[in-house]
Amino acid sequence: MNVLKNLKRIVDGFSKRKIQIALAESCTGGYISHMITNIPGASAVFERGIVSYSNKAKSDLLKIESDMFEKNGAVSEQVAKKMAENVRLLSNVDIGVGITGIAGPSGGNEEKPVGLVYMGFSTVEYTLIKRCIFKASRTVFKKKVLKEVLLLLKDYLENFK
Amino acid sequence: MNVLKNLKRIVDGFSKRKIQIALAESCTGGYISHMITNIPGASAVFERGIVSYSNKAKSDLLKIESDMFEKNGAVSEQVAKKMAENVRLLSNVDIGVGITGIAGPSGGNEEKPVGLVYMGFSTVEYTLIKRCIFKASRTVFKKKVLKEVLLLLKDYLENFK
Repeated sequence: MNVLKNLKRIVDGFSKRKIQIALAESCTGGYISHMITNIPGASAVFERGIVSYSNKAKSDLLKIESDMFEKNGAVSEQVAKKMAENVRLLSNVDIGVGITGIAGPSGGNEEKPVGLVYMGFSTVEYTLIKRCIFKASRTVFKKKVLKEVLLLLKDYLENFK
Repeated sequence: MNVLKNLKRIVDGFSKRKIQIALAESCTGGYISHMITNIPGASAVFERGIVSYSNKAKSDLLKIESDMFEKNGAVSEQVAKKMAENVRLLSNVDIGVGITGIAGPSGGNEEKPVGLVYMGFSTVEYTLIKRCIFKASRTVFKKKVLKEVLLLLKDYLENFK
């Protein structure tokens, strides 16, 4: 996958169709927002990004109830889903993306290993969750997640009526 | 300046002194958050980042009154100051950094050219504003701003009692 080519295609395609996106990133720490905003014209498409690194930030900025962290853990399908849905609703945009995972090198356990990541992708019609494990350094981990997010965005664009 | 060495020094130094930071980025689009969170252990130091690309995001997430955009412009000393102060206060951390500028290639004018950037740096004791102009591509522009932010953080750390 040519990342730069895909980023440009997504920014141009979304811009022409007046589709706006908002991101809520945890383990990728702003990398996805950074890569999208490298593309000139991104401001027509990218409305905001939230780097909700702490659970307090997830509660304050994304209205995720603290019960959910206790019940499911911050790295869970449920939290990724809420992050994607709430960033979309709170920003009043077409697509919300939520990313939560364990970039490592520490922080994993048997059930939730280092490299685990959940990505939520929310539109007005549906929310889907993608689960991956990338055993890699923090920087490579971020790049792998970017590619997965770009696939989700590309797929949406190709099927857009 | 060795960026990676400085990033590590800042994360380690802040972590030892239990100093937490929060960022509000506009023109750098999440790049500063991304670079800090590349360092293992960053989660002890980096509380949250807000990529307030639209003015609506600046109002919603950083409580900047829309009057200020009309009166001073989104790229202004006043907005950088408010971004830094408010992200610090709203996150309940020690240091808030606010960045607003014109990454280009379009969007500038005679008074506020492409490459102009204001950086706010806020602590409980003071807020300072740094103004720079970097005539460069979007990606080089972001790198130049990162270096300026690292100098501010390094300076704070070296003078920390």
